[in-house]
Amino acid sequence: MALLTTSCMESKSENKETQAIFQKGELGPAEHFTGKAWNTGLVANDTTYNTLIGNVYFEPGARSNWHSHPAGQILIITDGVGYHQIKGQPRQTIRKGDVVKCPPNVLHWHGASPDTGLQQIYILPKTEKGIVTWLQKVTDEEYNGRK
Amino acid sequence: MALLTTSCMESKSENKETQAIFQKGELGPAEHFTGKAWNTGLVANDTTYNTLIGNVYFEPGARSNWHSHPAGQILIITDGVGYHQIKGQPRQTIRKGDVVKCPPNVLHWHGASPDTGLQQIYILPKTEKGIVTWLQKVTDEEYNGRK
Repeated sequence: MALLTTSCMESKSENKETQAIFQKGELGPAEHFTGKAWNTGLVANDTTYNTLIGNVYFEPGARSNWHSHPAGQILIITDGVGYHQIKGQPRQTIRKGDVVKCPPNVLHWHGASPDTGLQQIYILPKTEKGIVTWLQKVTDEEYNGRK
Repeated sequence: MALLTTSCMESKSENKETQAIFQKGELGPAEHFTGKAWNTGLVANDTTYNTLIGNVYFEPGARSNWHSHPAGQILIITDGVGYHQIKGQPRQTIRKGDVVKCPPNVLHWHGASPDTGLQQIYILPKTEKGIVTWLQKVTDEEYNGRK
């Protein structure tokens, strides 16, 4: 029995697949993402809550373009390992349980690490101010944290 | 090897413990909760995002009092099984992956099922309007869906 328990735990900790809470959703457009990023909407924008919520699953190596949000963005990481970078600041590593904020109109990008995907809930508050402005691709140099 | 795999999967599906993404946090006060509900803050209220976010882990059988939010509330269920009821409507069963909205100033309660706990992220938008108004306890009759 002890052997069985150990084997189960080992196979868990070695598993680099992320646990999905939500449906995988739709593939994000190549215009705004490098690699495969799957988006599923959770709360549509309306005038009652003025909050847009969804989940993105970034496959290993996938990331967004640089972009900004008129009222900022909150990310809640529910599984996996990835990166978040605010323009002019060092790239941060983000993991299950982390919460990241990006202030209004500040450029940022987010995505998965090369080896492990990232499951992240995004929350856009104050949507009456707007949703997103998309910009240029994140270069390999930026993705690898060398810039 | 086949036997080992089967055993692992069985022990998983039979396990009624929920998977935690966040720290357990602080025990909610008996004044506002029946049973044990653990709250951990994820995003503090401020004037940039005007959004308050946290996670509650309801142990099996635990539930909130009736309460309302001036700008409504969004719940994202990340694991387990529980209930959500809006005053005057039938009790809903909520599970991993579900998203529930409660409109502004509408009475509701939420909590875990008797046998399985509930992990839920709560999102309060437009906090400039206020946070929460607490009311009476949820009776056993209400909790059991007989009212």
